[in-house]
Amino acid sequence: MILKGNLIFTREAGRLTVLPRGGLVLDDSGVILDVLASVPDRPEGQVVCDCGDRMILQSFSDMHLHAPQYPMLGMGMDLPLLDWLKTYTFRTEARFSDTEYARRVYRALAAELIANGTTRVLMFSSLHTDATIILMEELERAGVTGLVGKVNMDRNGGENYEETTEESKRETLRWLEGCEGFRRVRPALTPRFTPCCTDELMAWLGKLAEERGLPVQSHLSENRGEVELVRGLHPDCAQYWETYAKYGLWNGSTAMAHCVLSDRRERAAIRDAGVLAVHCADSNLNLCSGVAPVRTMLREGVRVALGSDIAGGAQLAMNQVITMSIRASKMRRMQENWETDFLTVAEGYYLGTTAGERFFGAGGGFAVGDALHAIVVDDSTLPEPARSLTLTERFERAIYLMRPEQITAVYSGGRRVK
Amino acid sequence: MILKGNLIFTREAGRLTVLPRGGLVLDDSGVILDVLASVPDRPEGQVVCDCGDRMILQSFSDMHLHAPQYPMLGMGMDLPLLDWLKTYTFRTEARFSDTEYARRVYRALAAELIANGTTRVLMFSSLHTDATIILMEELERAGVTGLVGKVNMDRNGGENYEETTEESKRETLRWLEGCEGFRRVRPALTPRFTPCCTDELMAWLGKLAEERGLPVQSHLSENRGEVELVRGLHPDCAQYWETYAKYGLWNGSTAMAHCVLSDRRERAAIRDAGVLAVHCADSNLNLCSGVAPVRTMLREGVRVALGSDIAGGAQLAMNQVITMSIRASKMRRMQENWETDFLTVAEGYYLGTTAGERFFGAGGGFAVGDALHAIVVDDSTLPEPARSLTLTERFERAIYLMRPEQITAVYSGGRRVK
Repeated sequence: MILKGNLIFTREAGRLTVLPRGGLVLDDSGVILDVLASVPDRPEGQVVCDCGDRMILQSFSDMHLHAPQYPMLGMGMDLPLLDWLKTYTFRTEARFSDTEYARRVYRALAAELIANGTTRVLMFSSLHTDATIILMEELERAGVTGLVGKVNMDRNGGENYEETTEESKRETLRWLEGCEGFRRVRPALTPRFTPCCTDELMAWLGKLAEERGLPVQSHLSENRGEVELVRGLHPDCAQYWETYAKYGLWNGSTAMAHCVLSDRRERAAIRDAGVLAVHCADSNLNLCSGVAPVRTMLREGVRVALGSDIAGGAQLAMNQVITMSIRASKMRRMQENWETDFLTVAEGYYLGTTAGERFFGAGGGFAVGDALHAIVVDDSTLPEPARSLTLTERFERAIYLMRPEQITAVYSGGRRVK
Repeated sequence: MILKGNLIFTREAGRLTVLPRGGLVLDDSGVILDVLASVPDRPEGQVVCDCGDRMILQSFSDMHLHAPQYPMLGMGMDLPLLDWLKTYTFRTEARFSDTEYARRVYRALAAELIANGTTRVLMFSSLHTDATIILMEELERAGVTGLVGKVNMDRNGGENYEETTEESKRETLRWLEGCEGFRRVRPALTPRFTPCCTDELMAWLGKLAEERGLPVQSHLSENRGEVELVRGLHPDCAQYWETYAKYGLWNGSTAMAHCVLSDRRERAAIRDAGVLAVHCADSNLNLCSGVAPVRTMLREGVRVALGSDIAGGAQLAMNQVITMSIRASKMRRMQENWETDFLTVAEGYYLGTTAGERFFGAGGGFAVGDALHAIVVDDSTLPEPARSLTLTERFERAIYLMRPEQITAVYSGGRRVK
């Protein structure tokens, strides 16, 4: 099969490839065999699926979000991080002991992810094993791929929302057994963050990650109060990242959300270990955490991707997350007396797609050998332009304006899911 | 008629009135006669229109936007203001010499305003008289009320986008004649901004405003380059605002967009004259202009309202403009070392509704004697919450999340328009 249309993809931050009326040659299981700059009128032995004048873009990778916070999207953003967790968040997550409620909410979340063109996620669940399995089922059913983690937290939780260290270990093992049947959604170990995990639990998780070759996700240097708390809990560690590193939770299969306050030394540790820093601009604004130095990180060679971080972030649609990251980078530019650059739309697109794809082992950017992850965008319903637009202009405004209405098809893991 | 439902309105910044199952008593022309905290089951001689569990909110007032920039929404935001105007904006506006194109675009814009619950506007047109009349027709047809201005600009325009001083005067008078038949959309004099208007034109407009009692809208202190340019053009004026004041364009019927760089002295001049400062957070971020000191302005007693400022702003929906203003205020808080407050959702709602209503002479906030401007919001399609929410919580998340799908009815000037 050849999927034909206006192809726009990125394999390097800031570099956009635009192939008007190009084509993606796919095998029967939806793996990309070739990328064509032009498609012959009647290609021999191949079916052409012609998208006409529509754009074929990479689908999005949301590299940090909390599924059980979906019910509180757009609420309670008047507190700094640690108070926000205790007042709103842990209470909401505790509700997912109810598996029927979990089923309904996670089904709606998975559908909304696909409707908005997000086909890959690196996602936190709650601490509930059963609800986590349900979440994985609903993601697979809808066509979302990626990694999900049952949360570990054996201290500093909320009322009815904490495990003992023993429970945490036992439930983690039970959850991993339950994961065996899954193909497109796989487990990632998920210590909530250092303040919520005892040293014993962290050490056990680090050992488990190594034994089973499991990826790890957590939070790092999001907020001042949090960083101070960690310093008090780990006086032996000069910096926050070392509280993960000393337990074996710090390598190229690790993703750390936020890194707002990571200084030069911490950023070097992130880069040197190949850890993925996940920038969550909307959340960091809403909770008054700050703006991560994304431009500087990219220049220094740190791997960066984007996360919606719902419900600290109030936007699930990754194209909105991309434009919010651009706005945040402009803020940072203004803070720095207009001396630094802002993120371009092409760079934002790279961070919201390819950067995440590569964490999952894909080549990224419609690479040959990758299963197809793509969206088809019909921008003919956006405002009528004043002159005919270039494809790059059409792409740029789609990133700013598109809604599920404009996303007419979604491909995930090689198959069509919308 | 009584419109019954969960009423939420604001008459003072930061103070929200919530009347569960309250009612608005309306006369035959849709003017509010009374606000009821509870509605009798069978009120004598009155028809009840029951919105059930839906929320009845004030509709929005967009106090600064450029209608002919609608075609470039979400595009070309990689340049600072003055370059952005020359490179993208003037060229797009020039297209509105074509009246058929104007008709199509303005019809779509008016429909999108109503779909998003914006029923009052203070709006810039282009410099074209005919297209401006068409814009006013399309707004009235859709149910949008407010003020529209044919733009005056007799210097520093773009290719094919400038008038001579004589043309500008003549066309302004022709446009005002054409406005005579309009009831719900009225004219506002609209010198683009000081860099685009000669002293002769400014003096003539000031005189015209006084003679005919016309309101005035323009731009003030948006961007550094602009402020420097104005200083060069008017060496006799110590500050930008004086270039308007000296020609009689500075009083309680004047609205000035942006005021990002207005210092204490300029803010005092705004306050003392009763000028309305229109905050356009999204635009000011996109073009790297800065963040206006809204909190400080409010504390000092300056009148402030909000504008989408499309297409410097990339969001037409005023609830999104409100939440972007909240985000911008959080940025400003972070810039100021977390020492200042951010805007609350209740304050943002006030700025996006009542503050604008009052510029149009209404009491604002469902005041008795005002024609009804309201939206009915069905939040039952938003994510299922983890527990039953208070009306204030439901309101807050509707402001963050609602889309046209959630706005099931819109009332404007006393009549239902959606």
